[in-house]
Amino acid sequence: MTCSEFDLIRHFFTEQSIRRTDVPLGIGDDAALLSPPADSLLAVSVDTLIAGIHFPLDTIARAVGYKALAVNLSDLAAMGAEPAWATLALTLPRADTSWLSDFAQGFFELASTHNVQLVGGDTTRGPLSITVQVTGFVSQEQALLRNGAQPGDGIFLTGTVGDAGLGLRLYQQPSDTHCDATMHLIHRLEFPTPRIAVGLALRGRASSAIDISDGLAADLGHVLTASGVGADIHVDQLPLSSAYRLLAPENNWQTAVSAGDDYELCFTLPAGLETEVLARLDCPCTRIGEITASPGLRWRDANDQQLALDNAGFDHFTSRKPQ
Amino acid sequence: MTCSEFDLIRHFFTEQSIRRTDVPLGIGDDAALLSPPADSLLAVSVDTLIAGIHFPLDTIARAVGYKALAVNLSDLAAMGAEPAWATLALTLPRADTSWLSDFAQGFFELASTHNVQLVGGDTTRGPLSITVQVTGFVSQEQALLRNGAQPGDGIFLTGTVGDAGLGLRLYQQPSDTHCDATMHLIHRLEFPTPRIAVGLALRGRASSAIDISDGLAADLGHVLTASGVGADIHVDQLPLSSAYRLLAPENNWQTAVSAGDDYELCFTLPAGLETEVLARLDCPCTRIGEITASPGLRWRDANDQQLALDNAGFDHFTSRKPQ
Repeated sequence: MTCSEFDLIRHFFTEQSIRRTDVPLGIGDDAALLSPPADSLLAVSVDTLIAGIHFPLDTIARAVGYKALAVNLSDLAAMGAEPAWATLALTLPRADTSWLSDFAQGFFELASTHNVQLVGGDTTRGPLSITVQVTGFVSQEQALLRNGAQPGDGIFLTGTVGDAGLGLRLYQQPSDTHCDATMHLIHRLEFPTPRIAVGLALRGRASSAIDISDGLAADLGHVLTASGVGADIHVDQLPLSSAYRLLAPENNWQTAVSAGDDYELCFTLPAGLETEVLARLDCPCTRIGEITASPGLRWRDANDQQLALDNAGFDHFTSRKPQ
Repeated sequence: MTCSEFDLIRHFFTEQSIRRTDVPLGIGDDAALLSPPADSLLAVSVDTLIAGIHFPLDTIARAVGYKALAVNLSDLAAMGAEPAWATLALTLPRADTSWLSDFAQGFFELASTHNVQLVGGDTTRGPLSITVQVTGFVSQEQALLRNGAQPGDGIFLTGTVGDAGLGLRLYQQPSDTHCDATMHLIHRLEFPTPRIAVGLALRGRASSAIDISDGLAADLGHVLTASGVGADIHVDQLPLSSAYRLLAPENNWQTAVSAGDDYELCFTLPAGLETEVLARLDCPCTRIGEITASPGLRWRDANDQQLALDNAGFDHFTSRKPQ
């Protein structure tokens, strides 16, 4: 790329509407200068999306820009943190202004929603990949961790699960039937909603929280391991969208529990707090099971019979992540 | 990759010797939790290295790990910031334990030198690339920016320039002569020294600072533009290593001023501070010219004749960076 092409790229990422007062120096010097809050910890998360691994190669640019930020904001939601700053490391095969404009639109529409300022970045030439790091604020006492689930706690999910996994399958194998339902599922894949407000409402309340990026089975498994507990999950209580029910084979629990990319929150609440906390949440939440002292993750049907589901399986093409 | 391969990767990056007291929660949850200092700003920089673009494909893994952190620490040095935390987003074509072990060794040997803790990361499968973000601490009053150079200020360089650019050429076109000099230049390419101590000593003193990642001409050009000034540079005063003098064609100023990757600091000092400040620095520094009110970057030879050098040229294969 020539310098002028990089100037063009820079143009898309310096013309942002969010200007926070805690950013004394943004993009343009060797480093950004940020003014941290006096009474909070910083919650920091970084995620990379690789074209052809984390999203299909022909995904629209607006969705790529949106999702690169969304998956990171989802991690902040799972910590109960209030988003503040982001950096963007963008590797591009070429300077395509139309693609860049759409990418920036998707990124900044979500950034604006959550008052996030882009404070730094790097643009390089290479196979398309995007690494975003976000920083949010949360107090040490109120941060939502994975290791606090206790036997007897209820297990909850925001929204619905399985949509993104089924959406990916339909994206790859399009059909002419049920267009509205198909579009709904693909939209859920491309534009996941980070549950920031839920995370904030759960602070100091939930005994554990995690976001569903790698699938319910894998991610809930992390909570159980960190907390040293087990869980019974009632598959008939899993929140499934009407589009999922319409287009998934009947009783297709496997996709719902193992497909990732939904970016819903899975959290646990002590029994005494359930009513109070659920009343404060701004999105549908469903109780799907209970934490048990007995270790292991058990799936139970409506007759309380145990089902054999693959807890480690993944049936979409996202790589596993170490964090 | 299978989960067990990712467990293996994680193993290399959680077994680190640096444990800072301002990291209440490191790698392992949805986000790290960090405790920022009460009296400092955060200086944040992010850089991506792409295999085949920023380093030759067959570069030894230890050098890749070292350099991925070094180029970011160099940005903190140029701000006068004290390094603290890093994250690592690593994209790998496969889980090669020997490569990973060497990569981690290079990364952590530099991290240990500067008391930097790795606090988060993401590992994905794809073409080899590494994105590191570092955070350091500096007060608002003492941060070194690009926009404070004044006419009459002296212009200084740490270390020597041109070594990495010439080293890359020799790496790509090896010869059997002058092995020691060749090895020195390639070592400078692979293991650049971030000038952290110099940056700290310049705080509140230097009128501007930048690190030489894209070449002296381009990077000093950023300072001149940001400060609204010009410069006269005396090419016969440019600090060149004996290896460079031995292996570069005579009077090869072009490589010295346009090849990047040296990661030396270029800074300006008001005339009255030169003696005091230079006495406090822990590495060789050379006065190469003066800031002028007249705009533009002029290269002058020993007879004070102006030389025509290409200020925008780059003769190595690093892409330009927007920041």
